[in-house]
Amino acid sequence: MALTVGVDVGGTKIAAGVVTDDGTVLEKVRHPSPADDADALRRGIAAAVNELRNRHEVDAVGVSAAGFVSADRRSILFAPNLVWGHDPLADLLEKEVGSTVVVENDANAAAWAEHRFGAGQGVPDQLMVTLGTGVGGGLILDGKIYRGAHGVAAEIGHIGILRDGIRCQCGRTGCLEQYASGRALQRDAQIAADAGRAPHLLAAADGDPQRVTGALVTQLAHEGKEDALALIGQLAEHLATGISSLVSVLDPALVVLGGGLSEAGDVLLEPTAIALNRDLTGGDDRPGPELRIAALGNDAGLIGAADLAREGLESS
Amino acid sequence: MALTVGVDVGGTKIAAGVVTDDGTVLEKVRHPSPADDADALRRGIAAAVNELRNRHEVDAVGVSAAGFVSADRRSILFAPNLVWGHDPLADLLEKEVGSTVVVENDANAAAWAEHRFGAGQGVPDQLMVTLGTGVGGGLILDGKIYRGAHGVAAEIGHIGILRDGIRCQCGRTGCLEQYASGRALQRDAQIAADAGRAPHLLAAADGDPQRVTGALVTQLAHEGKEDALALIGQLAEHLATGISSLVSVLDPALVVLGGGLSEAGDVLLEPTAIALNRDLTGGDDRPGPELRIAALGNDAGLIGAADLAREGLESS
Repeated sequence: MALTVGVDVGGTKIAAGVVTDDGTVLEKVRHPSPADDADALRRGIAAAVNELRNRHEVDAVGVSAAGFVSADRRSILFAPNLVWGHDPLADLLEKEVGSTVVVENDANAAAWAEHRFGAGQGVPDQLMVTLGTGVGGGLILDGKIYRGAHGVAAEIGHIGILRDGIRCQCGRTGCLEQYASGRALQRDAQIAADAGRAPHLLAAADGDPQRVTGALVTQLAHEGKEDALALIGQLAEHLATGISSLVSVLDPALVVLGGGLSEAGDVLLEPTAIALNRDLTGGDDRPGPELRIAALGNDAGLIGAADLAREGLESS
Repeated sequence: MALTVGVDVGGTKIAAGVVTDDGTVLEKVRHPSPADDADALRRGIAAAVNELRNRHEVDAVGVSAAGFVSADRRSILFAPNLVWGHDPLADLLEKEVGSTVVVENDANAAAWAEHRFGAGQGVPDQLMVTLGTGVGGGLILDGKIYRGAHGVAAEIGHIGILRDGIRCQCGRTGCLEQYASGRALQRDAQIAADAGRAPHLLAAADGDPQRVTGALVTQLAHEGKEDALALIGQLAEHLATGISSLVSVLDPALVVLGGGLSEAGDVLLEPTAIALNRDLTGGDDRPGPELRIAALGNDAGLIGAADLAREGLESS
């Protein structure tokens, strides 16, 4: 049985795993992620891969990273949170790990994993929304990742939902990412705590608004605390605004919510579904998409990257 | 050579044409469009088709109409501007015209025509934006019309560009259609004329703001009149806001601007391209789409519908 390695490169850590052809992770390692040094970052990826190669026979490597990936899946064109340099990442890594490397956008990789092994199995047309530090997207159309003409499709965090809204790292204003990401939730929760509008959150953060995190909001929402539920509800409204526009364009059968924030589960899913049903153009006269929480959690990126590396072997 | 008929059903007229397999329109007829009576509308379509069949041997009929078309391309699910009834339009029409009928969304049909014979020849991934009374869209992905899971993809007039904006016929607020359509241009031009901010337009409309039309704005913009250029420029800004979101999601190689408003040509194209280049996420680090004006004008819908009817014959 062919094994491949998937590497999920995040802003704080590199996670690498050996993955089987049915999506099982046999072993996983973590290394720190030096976000501001391209050479060190690449060496970190190579070290994680080579550690796994010492113990497993591996045929190919898939790297999942936040950013705009080139159409040939060898370079990262643009990444707001990591420094990659301008040389083709796949070329450099292939020399250091001694096998084929493909690079994939992290949300595309997660979408592929959910489509193959997770919440979206058997559904040919689906949109994955990854709600992490930022908001990413992956599009499965006709059972394949849709990459667009230049490889950078499905950057749904940067659709505008609010003209002249909050300025985004990308340079535009009013991007969905500024309203529906983990970072946005934390920002809004800290503001609410500071303004005295989130007493449970403030108490749970020992009275320091700066210690309120997105994870804390999710936790208190699960406990039924009204201030936390209101913050998730507000995020769900913005998320539904974005998703309803995406549904107008893409008409998917299924929308999968993934990323760290999706661990909120029904507390996030239910208000999003209600707002989406209310907002969909065509209302009762048109079929809408189903909305589901992702199934593979944090491993989706590395499982998807590993599976796409395997697919590359098979098609070559 | 097989001939097919394409029918473009608009709010005021039904245009039907006999089309060859290279997209040439051999003959075209027009009938009035009874927008509020489903039976009369269908009889009008049948009369137009049968008039052409008297003089040409026709193998199939394609009907292009504004509205949400079912995935099997036989029914219209939802149409804000025409009354269609609930029975499958294609079934009823086939009895009246005696040949195969397919129904297609008007912007999909126009996108297909531009892809096959017009501004988008040879480009596999393209987005068509039709700027008419409303704003429609058609998506060509991998050289095929992308219809989505339920047949209603590419309804780009109903992406939100402005939260809590102008209320749309579709029930939502802030839809692109409310800011970048011919109807929006006329509304804004009449408001400007009424408020004394559009002296050239007001003079050209004999001093009556209610007589200012979108076509008049386009005409005066071509003559270099500042008030008209400012109105087109404002529309171009909104249009670019919408297109930049769509480019983030779809990453097309080409965006084609069609519909009546696209007759404005460079006066519309240039400010839209400038605003789009400024707004695109990823800026200089990412390849963006080319922007072109459609080539087939008003005939795009019927040419596309006719060609799709022919394609249906060949694949069956």
